[in-house]
Amino acid sequence: MSAAMPRTVCWSETAAGPVVRLIDQTLLPGQLVIKDCRQLDEVCEAIRSLRVRGAPAIGCAAALAVALAVHRSVADTTEELINVVGHAARELAATRPTAVNLFWALERMQQVAEQSSDFGPDEFRAALLQAAEEVVADDLERCRRIGQYGAELIPDGANVLTHCNAGALATAGYGTALGVIRAAHEQGKQIHVWVDETRPLLQGARLTAWELQQEGIACTLICDSAAASLMRAGRVDCVVVGADRIAANGDTANKIGTYPVAIAAGRHQVPFYVAAPCSTVDFSLPSGDEIPIEERGPEEVTYIAGRLAQPICPAEVNIFNPAFDVTPAELITAIITEAGVAVQPLASSLAELSSEPFSSLSAPESSS
Amino acid sequence: MSAAMPRTVCWSETAAGPVVRLIDQTLLPGQLVIKDCRQLDEVCEAIRSLRVRGAPAIGCAAALAVALAVHRSVADTTEELINVVGHAARELAATRPTAVNLFWALERMQQVAEQSSDFGPDEFRAALLQAAEEVVADDLERCRRIGQYGAELIPDGANVLTHCNAGALATAGYGTALGVIRAAHEQGKQIHVWVDETRPLLQGARLTAWELQQEGIACTLICDSAAASLMRAGRVDCVVVGADRIAANGDTANKIGTYPVAIAAGRHQVPFYVAAPCSTVDFSLPSGDEIPIEERGPEEVTYIAGRLAQPICPAEVNIFNPAFDVTPAELITAIITEAGVAVQPLASSLAELSSEPFSSLSAPESSS
Repeated sequence: MSAAMPRTVCWSETAAGPVVRLIDQTLLPGQLVIKDCRQLDEVCEAIRSLRVRGAPAIGCAAALAVALAVHRSVADTTEELINVVGHAARELAATRPTAVNLFWALERMQQVAEQSSDFGPDEFRAALLQAAEEVVADDLERCRRIGQYGAELIPDGANVLTHCNAGALATAGYGTALGVIRAAHEQGKQIHVWVDETRPLLQGARLTAWELQQEGIACTLICDSAAASLMRAGRVDCVVVGADRIAANGDTANKIGTYPVAIAAGRHQVPFYVAAPCSTVDFSLPSGDEIPIEERGPEEVTYIAGRLAQPICPAEVNIFNPAFDVTPAELITAIITEAGVAVQPLASSLAELSSEPFSSLSAPESSS
Repeated sequence: MSAAMPRTVCWSETAAGPVVRLIDQTLLPGQLVIKDCRQLDEVCEAIRSLRVRGAPAIGCAAALAVALAVHRSVADTTEELINVVGHAARELAATRPTAVNLFWALERMQQVAEQSSDFGPDEFRAALLQAAEEVVADDLERCRRIGQYGAELIPDGANVLTHCNAGALATAGYGTALGVIRAAHEQGKQIHVWVDETRPLLQGARLTAWELQQEGIACTLICDSAAASLMRAGRVDCVVVGADRIAANGDTANKIGTYPVAIAAGRHQVPFYVAAPCSTVDFSLPSGDEIPIEERGPEEVTYIAGRLAQPICPAEVNIFNPAFDVTPAELITAIITEAGVAVQPLASSLAELSSEPFSSLSAPESSS
């Protein structure tokens, strides 16, 4: 995101007290509206309704929301504030089931709360805010490192296809998949991006195209179903997507429609890269079969992401609207993380990379 | 289509003279509007703007439009009327490039015009109308036979996935892919249909879901990109789609998005059937590489088939909007025609079936 753009999600002190400030992504690209969440419930609503979305950005919003809850609490003992953290974590954990960064961030905040149990209430509040700010700063730094590692995989002149939005808007900034593209662009490589529109909620058309336009990176929008024939015509050099959760074996949950892109890429020998921070890897799950897949409401399909007054289909038609799918590890050429590039076999490569986190803010220990 | 529904496209004598009468499919499912085309130009516009669409229905509309042109012509010699036929055929041939049934129907009408060159003007007009009516009646009969052959391939209790609309609305009636589903349903089989919404123009959501609802056939609408994960979950027993042009080797051009469905079906060993009349096979083309693929305007993508006031993406974003893709023969389990089911190897099987047309109205000779 260019310097002039507001941050995806951040902490802000206002005249009305502290807030979690975020871009309301449901209104993009038509309107750039900043929403200030003054209470935990507002952040939960913003996550559920996808005002803030993208696995890393959800993690950042959740961490900030825990800090907000303790700052807004009138409790005057640390014991009470620890209960506030527990309550906030439970509320936030119930917002969306698939992205593991949410749970990772909540675990991190609860760890800090436990470690700060001897503090007085004010110090406790400060410690929680500092921890949340670190989650955000850390995410930005991880994205930059992902970009550095990933850019080496992108040839000059490449036509890169991406699905959904794994950009600055999906993270604290810079992006994962778009971070890779951004870094390649910053290195002076001529990049052209095929942007899958990404039904039902059109994150590609609305958010990725907008981000790329802000950066001056050439792009062309396509319907999701046009990706395969572009590959057949030799017009796609590689695919880069983000991830919402990666199992220990490398199976990757990402936005619905990622799997068919991966199948087509496999058929046409197009490298298929996943870009995600190590916090996206859930070592407690042996394979993608165990990743819970969120199903969302029919109106996302029938009213085109809330943009139509009349549905596109006859009334009373059944709708099935899964938000994610799972791409098996065998279809993934490599997973680009902040600790390096995991290659096949992904299981051992991911385990190795995750054992050497670049900062003190490491992913939680495997619970398997 | 149920008995109460108007015909997709037909000839009608009105107080204002003869017309080509058609359902304006751009307004479905919100409104069922019948459009009377009084001049050739109106039929051309209806084909270009997809008021009438679907390869067989376009062929029917074109045949009727040639008859309309000679009936509306004030010419008083047969020689002049033969020129009217030639002019009409050229205008109609320029409307859409991919569906071969259009060219087949025009060739048929020109053959009849040549064979009728000794007739007086009134007899000539009558002969052309009879020929056009035969194209329509013949299409309906072919669809019924496709349904009979195809229904044998659909198990009782099957979950059938289809893409776009190859139904009554895409033909003179009954449909090709939906004809197969309709026939299986009429045989008492319990069928459930997964309906791909079919971006950009949403023919699945708008037309196929509507047709199936009219018939009382159970269906569930999905985004195109959800088909692959349904197959992975074992929830799709077979795929049946239509075709806009089939090359001699069996490579099949159909609505954009058919190819990724076929790739996913191949990966998951889900039978993938194409249902189309023999007139869809273009024996002059050795492979699908030679099939011209129509590109359409960006507004179909950005304004969601004309249903939005504001585009879904930022202004000035490039759009690539191919209307069709080509599924290679190797991914097609069988092609269901009115002459029987072509199996692998498709090239020889198609040639054999097409040499035994069921009626006098055979497809044109190969021009290769």
